[in-house]
Amino acid sequence: MDATINRIKEFNMKREWDQFHTPENLAKSINIEAGELLECFQWDNNFNLENVKDELADIFMYSIILAYKLDLDILEIINSKIDVNEKRYDVEHSKGNSKKYTEF
Amino acid sequence: MDATINRIKEFNMKREWDQFHTPENLAKSINIEAGELLECFQWDNNFNLENVKDELADIFMYSIILAYKLDLDILEIINSKIDVNEKRYDVEHSKGNSKKYTEF
Amino acid sequence: MDATINRIKEFNMKREWDQFHTPENLAKSINIEAGELLECFQWDNNFNLENVKDELADIFMYSIILAYKLDLDILEIINSKIDVNEKRYDVEHSKGNSKKYTEF
Amino acid sequence: MDATINRIKEFNMKREWDQFHTPENLAKSINIEAGELLECFQWDNNFNLENVKDELADIFMYSIILAYKLDLDILEIINSKIDVNEKRYDVEHSKGNSKKYTEF
Repeated sequence: MDATINRIKEFNMKREWDQFHTPENLAKSINIEAGELLECFQWDNNFNLENVKDELADIFMYSIILAYKLDLDILEIINSKIDVNEKRYDVEHSKGNSKKYTEF
Repeated sequence: MDATINRIKEFNMKREWDQFHTPENLAKSINIEAGELLECFQWDNNFNLENVKDELADIFMYSIILAYKLDLDILEIINSKIDVNEKRYDVEHSKGNSKKYTEF
Repeated sequence: MDATINRIKEFNMKREWDQFHTPENLAKSINIEAGELLECFQWDNNFNLENVKDELADIFMYSIILAYKLDLDILEIINSKIDVNEKRYDVEHSKGNSKKYTEF
Repeated sequence: MDATINRIKEFNMKREWDQFHTPENLAKSINIEAGELLECFQWDNNFNLENVKDELADIFMYSIILAYKLDLDILEIINSKIDVNEKRYDVEHSKGNSKKYTEF
């Protein structure tokens, strides 16, 4: 993972793209790519796996850039959120249903 | 990263949430969370870092789930996409500008 | 407006597209088009007006289809929401600032 | 429709919210609301109609504001797009299928 993050950093540095990668522009970019991912499932479930890979990779890339731009440790923020979710969604209440914790 | 992915898998298994995690539902979920991330930047750049962490973690989590549901290796799809981008965005044409490769 | 709504209905009827226009698929479609609109503003404000028109028209169209599929009167739902917003955002608290009503 | 558009304009003028309504911020807002609409359909089709009305109204409102901010006639841009779609999706090729015109 670290090698991949460094490859992304270097890719952007060489192209002097840092100037475009404000947190706001990255949040927009994640939305744009998320929309393209959703297009793979617009009318049915017969999705094209290559397209899904392509769009999912873009989402990961912009998310990684946003993380390093804000000095966030990706594993740390994910694990902190799982900690929160373990409290919000205790197994007893959430097993086998998709209710939001605010409905418990 | 592997330990975190396993923690996410176990979290979902315990709650029997696999049944909700179709590729389509996960693509929707990524869009929903991306919208919540964008809300941190809706009117200006004075974002709340804790909220950004929270939403970015959700985007990573659903993206990770989609990847393992489709048996995708995250680092592999990211690196394949960087390979493509290195060809699409050669340094000469793309340095210092944000043009899309289709405009070159 | 009624003539335009009827033109959209007829367009879809002729192509037998009603079968694809479930509320869920329309909600996805609105997100996809919203992402394309956002792409016009991805890195800066130098947007292409023709592209904006094009994407905004798509958002209106899918929103109109969703409304008639659910037997909703567009003006009625908009005016009901303005009624709500007038209470949530009284002029005194909201004048000149972009705070969410939950922050008052 | 005109009366409703005027009501929206007046609502925003009274609150001095015009300053926040740049085309870019409105495009973000439409994405945010589109994500909230999609949340009504996140895991299944048992949607809450009141929530759908609420989110759809928000999408219409921001879309209307974007239109008047850019001096666009809503019916005109919709009808122009239907003109385009009638050419892209001739009945013969598109009847009963959801293929994108680029696949014809």
